[in-house]
Amino acid sequence: MDVYRAGLSMAQWRRLIDDACRGQVTEPIRHIDEARGPRFDAIFVGGGSAGRFGAAVLRSLGGRPLVLERWPFLGGSCPHQACVPHHLFSEAARELDQAQALAGRLWYGKFDPKAASILELVDLFRSKRSGPHAHMNWQSAEQLGIEYIVNAEATVIDASTVRAAGRMFTARALVLCTGSRTARPGIPGEDLPGVFDYASFIEDLNYEPSKIVVIGGSKVAVEYASFYQATGTPTTVVSRGALLAAGGPGRMDDDMRHFVVDGMRARGVELLEQTIVTRISGDGHVAAVEVTGPGGARRIEADFVLMATGEQPNVAAFFPAVPVARDADGFVTVDDRMRTSVPGVYAAGDLLGPPLEMFKSRRSGTTAARNIMGVDSEFSYADIPDFLHTTYEVTWAGLSERAAREKFGDIVTIQVPPPDLAPGDTPLPMAEGSMLYGFTMPERTGFQKCVIDARSRRVVGIHHAGYGAKDAFQYLHHLMTRPGGLTIDELGDMNELYVSPDYFIGYARLRSSQAELTSM
Amino acid sequence: MDVYRAGLSMAQWRRLIDDACRGQVTEPIRHIDEARGPRFDAIFVGGGSAGRFGAAVLRSLGGRPLVLERWPFLGGSCPHQACVPHHLFSEAARELDQAQALAGRLWYGKFDPKAASILELVDLFRSKRSGPHAHMNWQSAEQLGIEYIVNAEATVIDASTVRAAGRMFTARALVLCTGSRTARPGIPGEDLPGVFDYASFIEDLNYEPSKIVVIGGSKVAVEYASFYQATGTPTTVVSRGALLAAGGPGRMDDDMRHFVVDGMRARGVELLEQTIVTRISGDGHVAAVEVTGPGGARRIEADFVLMATGEQPNVAAFFPAVPVARDADGFVTVDDRMRTSVPGVYAAGDLLGPPLEMFKSRRSGTTAARNIMGVDSEFSYADIPDFLHTTYEVTWAGLSERAAREKFGDIVTIQVPPPDLAPGDTPLPMAEGSMLYGFTMPERTGFQKCVIDARSRRVVGIHHAGYGAKDAFQYLHHLMTRPGGLTIDELGDMNELYVSPDYFIGYARLRSSQAELTSM
Repeated sequence: MDVYRAGLSMAQWRRLIDDACRGQVTEPIRHIDEARGPRFDAIFVGGGSAGRFGAAVLRSLGGRPLVLERWPFLGGSCPHQACVPHHLFSEAARELDQAQALAGRLWYGKFDPKAASILELVDLFRSKRSGPHAHMNWQSAEQLGIEYIVNAEATVIDASTVRAAGRMFTARALVLCTGSRTARPGIPGEDLPGVFDYASFIEDLNYEPSKIVVIGGSKVAVEYASFYQATGTPTTVVSRGALLAAGGPGRMDDDMRHFVVDGMRARGVELLEQTIVTRISGDGHVAAVEVTGPGGARRIEADFVLMATGEQPNVAAFFPAVPVARDADGFVTVDDRMRTSVPGVYAAGDLLGPPLEMFKSRRSGTTAARNIMGVDSEFSYADIPDFLHTTYEVTWAGLSERAAREKFGDIVTIQVPPPDLAPGDTPLPMAEGSMLYGFTMPERTGFQKCVIDARSRRVVGIHHAGYGAKDAFQYLHHLMTRPGGLTIDELGDMNELYVSPDYFIGYARLRSSQAELTSM
Repeated sequence: MDVYRAGLSMAQWRRLIDDACRGQVTEPIRHIDEARGPRFDAIFVGGGSAGRFGAAVLRSLGGRPLVLERWPFLGGSCPHQACVPHHLFSEAARELDQAQALAGRLWYGKFDPKAASILELVDLFRSKRSGPHAHMNWQSAEQLGIEYIVNAEATVIDASTVRAAGRMFTARALVLCTGSRTARPGIPGEDLPGVFDYASFIEDLNYEPSKIVVIGGSKVAVEYASFYQATGTPTTVVSRGALLAAGGPGRMDDDMRHFVVDGMRARGVELLEQTIVTRISGDGHVAAVEVTGPGGARRIEADFVLMATGEQPNVAAFFPAVPVARDADGFVTVDDRMRTSVPGVYAAGDLLGPPLEMFKSRRSGTTAARNIMGVDSEFSYADIPDFLHTTYEVTWAGLSERAAREKFGDIVTIQVPPPDLAPGDTPLPMAEGSMLYGFTMPERTGFQKCVIDARSRRVVGIHHAGYGAKDAFQYLHHLMTRPGGLTIDELGDMNELYVSPDYFIGYARLRSSQAELTSM
């Protein structure tokens, strides 16, 4: 099907994508300028965020990109199975958490776990996900001028040739961006019906879970467990190590981790740390998860299991035809210009391994595009701002207090609530999104900490659990990592928008006139 | 009552403040180091944010401040009658808006306007406001080391002498920060029971309104009207000019203003612009508001009226004893060092007139403190980031598209939803806080625009209606106004936290490789 310059409306795109997702349109959907022939500057194998953003930049620089995507839409797993549904569920978790907490008060009625249906939310997402998909296809065609073929498998033949939609395309460079999927660890019973990962959860769920086990201890595990519990469905998390300890002690601040983990426990999530899953059992459908931990062996009944056990790369479309070097986990290795070990072949996105985050996908794709077009460009993601959801938005950048103390010695912190108060002693930090909690359950308003190197007066770590600060962390991270960094004095001289979800500016103002900084 | 070094706990402070607010503690509450005598470096007359922050900085710089406050707590009107209750009501408005929109879907039951009680929320606020108050008193004593007397009227005798709690105190400088209150315009009937301003609404409401008129056309009017309507209480706004047009066309972007105003109308708020109130009528209680507008004269029935008619300064404590120069509206005039026309007398906060915002109060207080302590310091608030609430957070900084076009000529915009789409055509911008809307009512996810000077490639205006971007605007404003500003290229090279409530980084990444920028 040729849609080049067809000027499809958003509604037409939605229908076409819906039909294709239902298998009613099986032919490739081609948005290609046939008059220009099959030779491109670069072919992006995979139309997720890495491929789409890379193609947009290559086009902006005067090049001719081709994006090839097996799904009938651009944008990749994010809007189809990953970030977007996750954000929908996390928003539901936040609202349901409040509905549970305030049940019977103000305008909130009795909380009815039967009314909060996981299946209904998944159905809502499935029925409407073509909306964002349509936007990506429309934008890529109408606003970005990208040529693409969707709804077609691509097969890489060699470093300059790709077959798709029954045709051969060539380019002076390839950008591999085929993404990743959940790595199944090989637990006996992990293939039983009722055992899901974040993708099959979206695609295949057809019943309402009544008791859930989540296997894993990092972001995905914490996020989905928080959501499930918020719907009123009893949820157990089984983690090999300490929850959210991945990345080492330098990543998440200890106090923030406690706020997050204690908060999950207070909401009823059962957390089993240092615990191994030995077997998933059931007769034709999952019925229990058998574990071994500090308390010995145990059988946890469950009719739904989520495997949040890490990721593995999707390499079938290009490996071994293009024998790029890969690391021990199979992820493709690249240099700072996104070049693989095979000349002319670049890689980008989740295929590169952790962190599996949007900024990395987009920037690795655009970095590849720039270098292909002769613009020297490097991208390193050693120091990143990061976040996750529980029923809160949890965001951090820079160093934890512990890591900062090890690195700089003399550290000052600004913390809300202050370290010498119990969380329920004060409604602070209370801001957009936690005002109702501030006046009903003050221990629930959140937690935040700013870590300052006392000698240089530079902000070296920021940590926030609450609502409304995530967006700001993008810019704070930029300010902290630019040459010269961000001092508490500069922070205290900014103009805050009160009640600001982070209290950093206001508190910096209270402290920044000190010649010798002290904590508060 | 002497509480110096008494180490009162938060709970003790709460009880003491509650008792004082109920009139059961009438004596002054003194947190003063009596051993050091009655002479200070500066006396802050008024313990709101200007006085409290000014005193903290003066103390940090080695000075001895005294704060005098008539209420039994520091923090001023913000946590007692103004910003904090407003934020609570705006969060309720957001939640109620969603509960109305999604009534009967997902876990939301039928929306019952009887369950959403304005009086109950005001009661909740009144019953708990001593929590934040206690934090301010505790923090000022325990963390900031400030001397203060609360629960005592202060009378300024001359430029270096103030009487309070039956005693005389002297200082080498005074900082006047006695705040402001609603200016009543002199409409016949404005003193009838049932006519409130934002302060008396908190203090005196004792019935459930059933039909509301809000008089005024700027922030306070829009914010309270949105809240009232969200509770299911029919609300009419009567504005002399166009709604939110104050500050001129350079302030709020036209498209964003339309999104905001159309959104209020779509939610049922009746908006009467270019309309004058001629009379408020009723027999012992307000019953109707009589207006004249484009459609002629009209009588609007109402049992509750909110006067959102601007502010006037509180000068009784010091004028004319200290005859500081004042402007036509009575606000105290100062230079960039916060010096009044009377040597040794400074002023800060709402006493200086619009903008009546926290950052101005705090920074004017700290600027006065620095200059008093010999640290040369200036503060100008010509270019400010700004925000208001409807059921959305509405935030802006820099120039509107129109003002930017007038100033720079060649302007590029990045807008979501894009200008050529109807709002319901796409769920974008959809992010934290608007995910549920994205999948149910896509026209409700918000609006945003980034205005770029095409020649310098600098971001000159940012505009956002949605959730979660307000905090970020503090830092974006800093980046835009620092020397060199913020280019679209720098913006596109930042690391975003996806789904970021503002789409600025992601969209800048899509466009910033263009040699000649184009809009999208």
